[in-house]
Amino acid sequence: MSRRRVGKKSLCLCGALLALGGVAGAALAAPSGGGAAHALDPFVLLAFGLMLLAAKLGGELFTKFDQPAVLGELLAGMAVGALSLAGVGWVEAVRNDAVVAALAEFGVIILLFEVGLESNVKEMAEVGASALLVAVLGVVVPFFLGWGVAFYFLPDEPALVHVFIGATLCATSVGITARVLRDMGRLQTRESRIILGAAVIDDVLGLLILAVVAGAIRASAAGGALAASDVAVIAGKSVAFLAAALLAGQFLVPHLFRGAGRLQSRGVLVTFAVAFCFLLAWAAAQVGLAPIVGAFAAGLVLDEVHFEAFLKRGEQHLHELLSPVSALLVPIFFVLMGLKVDLSVFGRVEVLGFAAVLTLAAVVGKQVCALGVVERGVNRLAVGLGMIPRGEVGLIFAGIGAALTLPDARGAAVPVVGAATFGAVVIMVVVTTLVTPPVLKWALQRGTGEDVNR
Amino acid sequence: MSRRRVGKKSLCLCGALLALGGVAGAALAAPSGGGAAHALDPFVLLAFGLMLLAAKLGGELFTKFDQPAVLGELLAGMAVGALSLAGVGWVEAVRNDAVVAALAEFGVIILLFEVGLESNVKEMAEVGASALLVAVLGVVVPFFLGWGVAFYFLPDEPALVHVFIGATLCATSVGITARVLRDMGRLQTRESRIILGAAVIDDVLGLLILAVVAGAIRASAAGGALAASDVAVIAGKSVAFLAAALLAGQFLVPHLFRGAGRLQSRGVLVTFAVAFCFLLAWAAAQVGLAPIVGAFAAGLVLDEVHFEAFLKRGEQHLHELLSPVSALLVPIFFVLMGLKVDLSVFGRVEVLGFAAVLTLAAVVGKQVCALGVVERGVNRLAVGLGMIPRGEVGLIFAGIGAALTLPDARGAAVPVVGAATFGAVVIMVVVTTLVTPPVLKWALQRGTGEDVNR
Repeated sequence: MSRRRVGKKSLCLCGALLALGGVAGAALAAPSGGGAAHALDPFVLLAFGLMLLAAKLGGELFTKFDQPAVLGELLAGMAVGALSLAGVGWVEAVRNDAVVAALAEFGVIILLFEVGLESNVKEMAEVGASALLVAVLGVVVPFFLGWGVAFYFLPDEPALVHVFIGATLCATSVGITARVLRDMGRLQTRESRIILGAAVIDDVLGLLILAVVAGAIRASAAGGALAASDVAVIAGKSVAFLAAALLAGQFLVPHLFRGAGRLQSRGVLVTFAVAFCFLLAWAAAQVGLAPIVGAFAAGLVLDEVHFEAFLKRGEQHLHELLSPVSALLVPIFFVLMGLKVDLSVFGRVEVLGFAAVLTLAAVVGKQVCALGVVERGVNRLAVGLGMIPRGEVGLIFAGIGAALTLPDARGAAVPVVGAATFGAVVIMVVVTTLVTPPVLKWALQRGTGEDVNR
Repeated sequence: MSRRRVGKKSLCLCGALLALGGVAGAALAAPSGGGAAHALDPFVLLAFGLMLLAAKLGGELFTKFDQPAVLGELLAGMAVGALSLAGVGWVEAVRNDAVVAALAEFGVIILLFEVGLESNVKEMAEVGASALLVAVLGVVVPFFLGWGVAFYFLPDEPALVHVFIGATLCATSVGITARVLRDMGRLQTRESRIILGAAVIDDVLGLLILAVVAGAIRASAAGGALAASDVAVIAGKSVAFLAAALLAGQFLVPHLFRGAGRLQSRGVLVTFAVAFCFLLAWAAAQVGLAPIVGAFAAGLVLDEVHFEAFLKRGEQHLHELLSPVSALLVPIFFVLMGLKVDLSVFGRVEVLGFAAVLTLAAVVGKQVCALGVVERGVNRLAVGLGMIPRGEVGLIFAGIGAALTLPDARGAAVPVVGAATFGAVVIMVVVTTLVTPPVLKWALQRGTGEDVNR
């Protein structure tokens, strides 16, 4: 397909997206007729349907240009959100709807469950020293760079806000890098194994940092000062939770799913797996962690070997069963994140400056990862570049930060991640994600990797 | 497997269900720790996970005894609901949670979408005169019987309540009968084709009656008197909506899905299909119909031929993609329906009497269907018995009735289907559904069908 052809099709998609916005505006502005008689406001049905279509069209537009679909979903949400600047009131209703928010949260829980399912404890142990060193460097350096940038640009904000912004720079979005590596047929190379292993460890480290920072913010919001012992308690709880989940995976889960395998009714596997994921997500929230940590842990401890009974009788693999569920729920999260971006902040020069420097810190910070590779003959440049994208994980952090509050000078609760910071983080996520596929391709095609070994 | 073995396993399942209730009680009673920081109350994660497990265990128990899983899900909900009689407060929280209600509504929308997908306009036309006659008789007679029974037992209620209770007796639950026929290898017989065809027409007629009655109730609640012209307008709107949906199916849907088939990103088919279903459900609500009518219409007009582009590139069939989605959402509806049954009404003799006579009306009313068979050599007894189960459709009607209100003598809004009526309808649904598999098996094994031809 020629470049021209792609361009024309993309224009069609853009047009469809705009038309969708227009229809949505007309439809949502109309008063809802049969609403009173149903427990559920029909408005939610419309919002859900239109968000799905917007996500698919936006995703398709980006897929056409070899870009990750998640960016298209995010920008589709921003495009719909732009209508609120034009005074369209229903965008605000979607932004604040409790059911839409719940569906988005379910989406991100299912997403982290899937990411957890893709990795398992044994594989993580095998990747070895390089992955661990790459991961730790790739977390520590961007964390302090982000902290410093936030301190410089937001001097009036409390220190915990600076720390939180640092935390949003930590995690690597494994999905985008994995997709580029797979598309180039390089998934089995040493570079790939190190990048993917490090990205998984990054996720865990990032979630731990998030737990500690969020816990500190909650303690501070409750009026308590943050003692070093509190940090230790929160970190300890997180580690204990993950350890308990791993132990449960070792000793409890095999029995549980062997028992479930004896059940004959329809949909047992997907029902038990999702129930397990939701219960662990709830348990994580009970010990003060984000629910997504529990969902990730649930995925980590579940493994295909637990589902032998189901596979033997010809049922589908769990990841196939989850695929339509995540196709319906995950885009709702990213469209809602896009919707929540207050586009008016992009008109403020200081926000754009903050976003630019934050993005630079995110890119530069991860290049230190190249130093973490202990083996010889590995393309270190590719490792550093492959760690750049923040993707969904950065957005998830920003979303959590928008829900956390700290008292301001007059004691009123204000969100840790305000409109300006949220906008800057979205810019950082978009740029790091957009820039990775081309530069990673370039680095991998550049040579055998020997030429960048110092 | 011996009868004894089944009994022992079922005892295990019962025990697991009770243990689940205990755990849930302890867990849900504990104060939620990390709730404030997240948009979603983690309580919903716990409720969702436990409702899924309760549904699966209850469903499995009934599957073991060759009974429909839906009954097990309903009774599992009632068992959990019984804890509220023992003073457990969190049951009330689950009953009234907006997100749980929304998930249940999504479940019933997906269920009706699936039912619609299973039938198509052409097949409905082919079943011919017998199916239509059986369906009309099977709707008219139970409708007036139910009306009369309600009039006798609830003399103080407004006439519209009697009419609504009559409407809940109309529809046949196609799922349960189809399962029995399939299990016996009789799906291709004339009896089966007539029963299933009539059940589909029943669904449409029942949904039309529901639309008219619910419209009348809403008009009356708004203070307006119910003129014959209003009924005509509501019926006209319903017919116009279905006609418009069918026309869209003929002329618009093929283009829409051919276009969607060109999109390359993941999950296009399931996303577009579900978005279409939700948008039609919303459109139905806008013209005053129940959202499930729109979902059913969406399923009716979608057909495998529209998805050729997806099937050609090796994607799964839509019903396979929807299967995990419905496995996760549909049971939430039935468990919630069970939870909403106020068990204390079963202690009132007049409710039990009402339930018994209503059930009798439901069973006897459908036996008239046998007279609607115009062909010779058909097992008429089996046709009448096969139409008995009310299953999910009766529950859906009762759920809608519980959300509709009418002013009482002092002008206060009271639900059309109150606690006592809801309990009686649930008993009717459970008994008609339980009784059908054994009597239908008996009638089919009884003879070639010639012996019951008069």
